[in-house]
Amino acid sequence: MNALPPVTLMLGGARSGKSRHAEALVEGQPGACVYIATAEAGDHEMAERIRRHQARRGARWQTLEEPLDLVGALRGAARSDGAVLVDCLTLWLSNLLGADRDVETETQSLVAALPGLAGPVVFVSNEVGLGIVPEGALTRAFVDHAGRLHQAIATAAQSVLFMTAGLPLALKTPA
Amino acid sequence: MNALPPVTLMLGGARSGKSRHAEALVEGQPGACVYIATAEAGDHEMAERIRRHQARRGARWQTLEEPLDLVGALRGAARSDGAVLVDCLTLWLSNLLGADRDVETETQSLVAALPGLAGPVVFVSNEVGLGIVPEGALTRAFVDHAGRLHQAIATAAQSVLFMTAGLPLALKTPA
Amino acid sequence: MNALPPVTLMLGGARSGKSRHAEALVEGQPGACVYIATAEAGDHEMAERIRRHQARRGARWQTLEEPLDLVGALRGAARSDGAVLVDCLTLWLSNLLGADRDVETETQSLVAALPGLAGPVVFVSNEVGLGIVPEGALTRAFVDHAGRLHQAIATAAQSVLFMTAGLPLALKTPA
Repeated sequence: MNALPPVTLMLGGARSGKSRHAEALVEGQPGACVYIATAEAGDHEMAERIRRHQARRGARWQTLEEPLDLVGALRGAARSDGAVLVDCLTLWLSNLLGADRDVETETQSLVAALPGLAGPVVFVSNEVGLGIVPEGALTRAFVDHAGRLHQAIATAAQSVLFMTAGLPLALKTPA
Repeated sequence: MNALPPVTLMLGGARSGKSRHAEALVEGQPGACVYIATAEAGDHEMAERIRRHQARRGARWQTLEEPLDLVGALRGAARSDGAVLVDCLTLWLSNLLGADRDVETETQSLVAALPGLAGPVVFVSNEVGLGIVPEGALTRAFVDHAGRLHQAIATAAQSVLFMTAGLPLALKTPA
Repeated sequence: MNALPPVTLMLGGARSGKSRHAEALVEGQPGACVYIATAEAGDHEMAERIRRHQARRGARWQTLEEPLDLVGALRGAARSDGAVLVDCLTLWLSNLLGADRDVETETQSLVAALPGLAGPVVFVSNEVGLGIVPEGALTRAFVDHAGRLHQAIATAAQSVLFMTAGLPLALKTPA
């Protein structure tokens, strides 16, 4: 198994296999595996997705649910010696907007916290900007926020992967 | 002309040139060319698309129209000695859902049938999961089904290409 | 700084960093930098985007606003000795459709004009065909037009880049 760099960003579309691949990357590291879930089981569809994801991961995983305070969850997780998976940034962004938080400030705080983490972290996020420009101004703003967030994390990351049909494509590789 | 591996998956967006490139791959093989169309000329827009596609392909092609029983069509086509083009999986999926078929079972049957085919087959499919998450639950389910179908075929394929603006990008290459 | 080939196409999703990267490519050339904006400040959201883009570019840039006659603007810009950035083709297409122009004819005129230009040109355009097929027939037609336009420019270009999260991926490189 290869050692993960400090920060990995795993982008991809819906059902592209990005969560599964990210889990495999984290499980390839020694020590504990920490799963930070940004989703909340707000409706039946989402609860079912969370249940399926948890069933897939084994007993080696510790799960933290944190819809908003991602930096705090990362700092808490970093007290363990293992690798951390954040699944996913898109839902975190959605939660921030729903809670009227300032996305730019939150993004800067997240990027600023990354160098202080003890172990490697893998961020999973949905690429949402490759379809037709959506009609609602709020949805357009969401796409814009997601794109800027991805650029910020990709700049901070040493490894960026784009997943299609379960196949990872390296967009950025550690030097 | 390079020999095609047994299974090729050609993914890409709308008007990305994937059908044209897939046709060229199949025409590069010796023997007959079989075109399995999963589209039905149900409305004027689709009928016009089918007509344009047929006009582009020459007399060397044999066309089978099969909206649902893709495994049967592939087995029938395999009696010839040539290569087969399936265009496209996304419409097949849409037809399956419209006919209340179980997509997971159908996908497993398709994957199970692949090793038994006599000649190479190229599957064309639309990547649809890279835009904003669509609003309707049925449409979200369609995107999920498409992603899982693509993962299953990509696992079984030796070659997976992603087409953008007429330019193929190799996501998986034969060993 | 590397010399740009005569024609570069920069594709990418919303907020993928494609305009910024294209600006850097053009600024890496000697001589003047010409920015051909196809956007019109028709509403507040768009006016704000244009203002932010202009503030980002420095005094070295000359800006031409041309929503429809892109060939004329390119010929005018070519009288200078510098590189030209066209931002973006997607809005040009939208303007053509709004003005009832024939997109195929306009695309052919644009491609035919490219070999006559004095300096390098970089076209920026949005990939819009990777989400779910949109519902309206006009929107579907727009996606189809965009895909065909991208294929035509990609064929004429020596360099085609696909931008994701600020990271360029080469789809076509100069021979």
